[in-house]
Amino acid sequence: VGRVQLDLNADLGEGFGHWSLGDDDALLDVVTSANVACGFHAGDPTIMRRVCQTAAARGVAIGAQVGYRDLAGFGRRPIAMDPDDLTADVLYQLGALRAFAAAAGTRVRYLKPHGALYNTVFHDCDQAGAVVAALSAYEEPIALLALPGSVIADQARAAGIAVVHEGFADRAYLADGTLVARSRPGAVLTDPAEIASRAVQMAVEHRVRAADGTELSLSVGSICVHGDTPDAVLIARTVAEALDRAGVTPHPFA
Amino acid sequence: VGRVQLDLNADLGEGFGHWSLGDDDALLDVVTSANVACGFHAGDPTIMRRVCQTAAARGVAIGAQVGYRDLAGFGRRPIAMDPDDLTADVLYQLGALRAFAAAAGTRVRYLKPHGALYNTVFHDCDQAGAVVAALSAYEEPIALLALPGSVIADQARAAGIAVVHEGFADRAYLADGTLVARSRPGAVLTDPAEIASRAVQMAVEHRVRAADGTELSLSVGSICVHGDTPDAVLIARTVAEALDRAGVTPHPFA
Amino acid sequence: VGRVQLDLNADLGEGFGHWSLGDDDALLDVVTSANVACGFHAGDPTIMRRVCQTAAARGVAIGAQVGYRDLAGFGRRPIAMDPDDLTADVLYQLGALRAFAAAAGTRVRYLKPHGALYNTVFHDCDQAGAVVAALSAYEEPIALLALPGSVIADQARAAGIAVVHEGFADRAYLADGTLVARSRPGAVLTDPAEIASRAVQMAVEHRVRAADGTELSLSVGSICVHGDTPDAVLIARTVAEALDRAGVTPHPFA
Amino acid sequence: VGRVQLDLNADLGEGFGHWSLGDDDALLDVVTSANVACGFHAGDPTIMRRVCQTAAARGVAIGAQVGYRDLAGFGRRPIAMDPDDLTADVLYQLGALRAFAAAAGTRVRYLKPHGALYNTVFHDCDQAGAVVAALSAYEEPIALLALPGSVIADQARAAGIAVVHEGFADRAYLADGTLVARSRPGAVLTDPAEIASRAVQMAVEHRVRAADGTELSLSVGSICVHGDTPDAVLIARTVAEALDRAGVTPHPFA
Repeated sequence: VGRVQLDLNADLGEGFGHWSLGDDDALLDVVTSANVACGFHAGDPTIMRRVCQTAAARGVAIGAQVGYRDLAGFGRRPIAMDPDDLTADVLYQLGALRAFAAAAGTRVRYLKPHGALYNTVFHDCDQAGAVVAALSAYEEPIALLALPGSVIADQARAAGIAVVHEGFADRAYLADGTLVARSRPGAVLTDPAEIASRAVQMAVEHRVRAADGTELSLSVGSICVHGDTPDAVLIARTVAEALDRAGVTPHPFA
Repeated sequence: VGRVQLDLNADLGEGFGHWSLGDDDALLDVVTSANVACGFHAGDPTIMRRVCQTAAARGVAIGAQVGYRDLAGFGRRPIAMDPDDLTADVLYQLGALRAFAAAAGTRVRYLKPHGALYNTVFHDCDQAGAVVAALSAYEEPIALLALPGSVIADQARAAGIAVVHEGFADRAYLADGTLVARSRPGAVLTDPAEIASRAVQMAVEHRVRAADGTELSLSVGSICVHGDTPDAVLIARTVAEALDRAGVTPHPFA
Repeated sequence: VGRVQLDLNADLGEGFGHWSLGDDDALLDVVTSANVACGFHAGDPTIMRRVCQTAAARGVAIGAQVGYRDLAGFGRRPIAMDPDDLTADVLYQLGALRAFAAAAGTRVRYLKPHGALYNTVFHDCDQAGAVVAALSAYEEPIALLALPGSVIADQARAAGIAVVHEGFADRAYLADGTLVARSRPGAVLTDPAEIASRAVQMAVEHRVRAADGTELSLSVGSICVHGDTPDAVLIARTVAEALDRAGVTPHPFA
Repeated sequence: VGRVQLDLNADLGEGFGHWSLGDDDALLDVVTSANVACGFHAGDPTIMRRVCQTAAARGVAIGAQVGYRDLAGFGRRPIAMDPDDLTADVLYQLGALRAFAAAAGTRVRYLKPHGALYNTVFHDCDQAGAVVAALSAYEEPIALLALPGSVIADQARAAGIAVVHEGFADRAYLADGTLVARSRPGAVLTDPAEIASRAVQMAVEHRVRAADGTELSLSVGSICVHGDTPDAVLIARTVAEALDRAGVTPHPFA
């Protein structure tokens, strides 16, 4: 049997000013897509510039990790904002990242909502529509990285935007295919071997076991590994190696 | 004698959230170039989007009014920052504005530093170099709007960037061609007729009278009128009409 | 019949940096309580200092107008934040304002939540509890200005905090005693005579007519007039004069 | 010979939101004074609350680590701001911290300027005067922690404010008693034994060796150890143990 290809993505560039978070350089050696924070919930221009340069040099695809304007809350607090304002906020972040991608000789290839925005656009039509409107207003077509079954995935497809489904190897799932909330026990897995095994299951068998034991069918174009846990780099490497042994070659989806 | 063309620019989009400043819509009927605040010292994504749409619809050229990251100080406080960080901050602002210009079917045509940054890059080689580096790293050539005789004008020209000199019809000049500091009495002129007469002098006779009476030679490609004074719209209209009577047609420089 | 006393409050100090909002000085001549914005959704240290000085000089009581950390949204966007973080945010704002009240020779006498926080603590137990926890942790007892029937009013009373009910002379009411949302037509009244007449009705007859015609019983210790509408000062003066003619003397409740 | 007492201070609470910096809890076991960041350059309300609670529980004195409003620059970039605005900014930070100290049953005992502000008030009369004005306007007398020979130390004494001189065990000195700029090689010492030995020299012999070999006389009431270096806790413990062996008992100065 021939080898298959699959994307491995991680949130990167999530420091701010004097504060760092995660090991961007080490992760850029493992992942094939970098969700670069764009300054509203994390990230600053200097960090964005550096991450884009390194990503471009290593052939890692650059995506816009866009979030609510909430540095104090790391974008993890839902904000009930006007959809038009949200469209403008997303477009602003997209453009800002584009400048650094272009300066590094490449471009922004996809968008992934972050934190509370990621969760909100799973079900909220207005906010999902606002993000899709930003993608439609952006100067060139780029893909959307989203959870299968999400409202935003449906809306984006309807708007002619390429949608790539992502799976979370290190997050517990509910039986309906959504993620267990971070605030709940067991929401975030930490054992590298278990995470790697789930990634292989997603990649090869197109399924994942939910927290209640249900077997979920899942067809994903990218697997997310988190960048901000203490063992993030070890986990990412373990996942990449397990995928390789299972005949899966990491490759950018966009 | 035939008519000549000259650009008229103003700072626009300088509100923030619930706070407004100046009458963007009225000024966009008068000026030919809009220096749009990019969110670091003033402006927010929703305002930037709206100003870009209106400017594009009226054929007004869009420029990036970039400043220090200092909303509380409106960008009027010099910040002794690292040049690399400044380059990244400027590139970020340029890219963010580009997204709105592109969404409105046009593009960012020039850059104008704002407030304390405008003053600093007149003489400070490091900060001037940082702004020029951002212009060089931007994905397409755009012009720089700068004071004649400024360090940044020299550096930009040396880097192959088009430089357009600007004159201030409503600011007092020192004998060396620099502006009287805003904090000094008489720094900002308020009489529409006097401002208009100075604009005509700059446009037609290529000179302006300094605060001490010296006649300065001055060849400018754009005249700046301020947007945030109480009589801003009246002044801008008076200037435009006086220029028209003197045979000068407002026209974007870029 | 003898005259009665009633408090008249307004939101003040709602500018930020270079941006102003409302005419603080003129309103401080009319109201008896100043809800001073504390820097999270509006207001900055320089403005807070100036408003406290003027309020103290004129015998106007100083209250803390606390809000979500959201300058871009003016505190009008609900943020689903952790209650412990909210308690800390409120305590921070209270302390900051205290410094300016103390420097002006007085102290903070009450707290009034602003914007989206005002609406949220009407019904949300967790966020209401978070604000009450901040009041309990504050170094001296101060009052809470709140809508009659709100969850926060009940929780505050249960915690031993003095609660003063407020009425809105310039806002439309629903039949259940809550305010018509700002986004709805007719939510904000603008006719000075009508607003003044409603204020007198509240003050003297202890009732107000809701948008659907229902007569609501309402016993209030303070009447709010808004400071950020174009006719704010005229409205406030009209209300104060009408109250005076009706035998009501404006007097701080705290 | 009897034992002497000396204060040991460190910058604490310098995280922001999701980002942490240093190990506040471990350092609060070693130092006797905590310079708590007040939210303008670092620190947020939740962190301030927690650090104040722990400091109070352990008998560590709480001081206000005040800085420029510059989260992106961590307060390390000089901002040429209006002295009145600076006074207001400092008073705001002092009051905010007071709320958390009071909630923890204690009070703010001193102020220490941070980063670029620390350096600026060494020589700049206007900015030094602005900080002293904030101390004078604060509701009770508190001490100032400052470099010997600084302009702010002189101005504070002239205003009747208690001044405590501090020495830096882990920073290189110039022959004039000022610190070598952080940007210069060798500015920050990292060897715990060397740092401890310098601390003992300062505490017992009242002198320190400058970078050029000069022996400086130095009488300090507090020694600063940094909290944000990788070995911060180890260094602080090594310093405390060396001081103890030399007959110096750590004790808050205020």
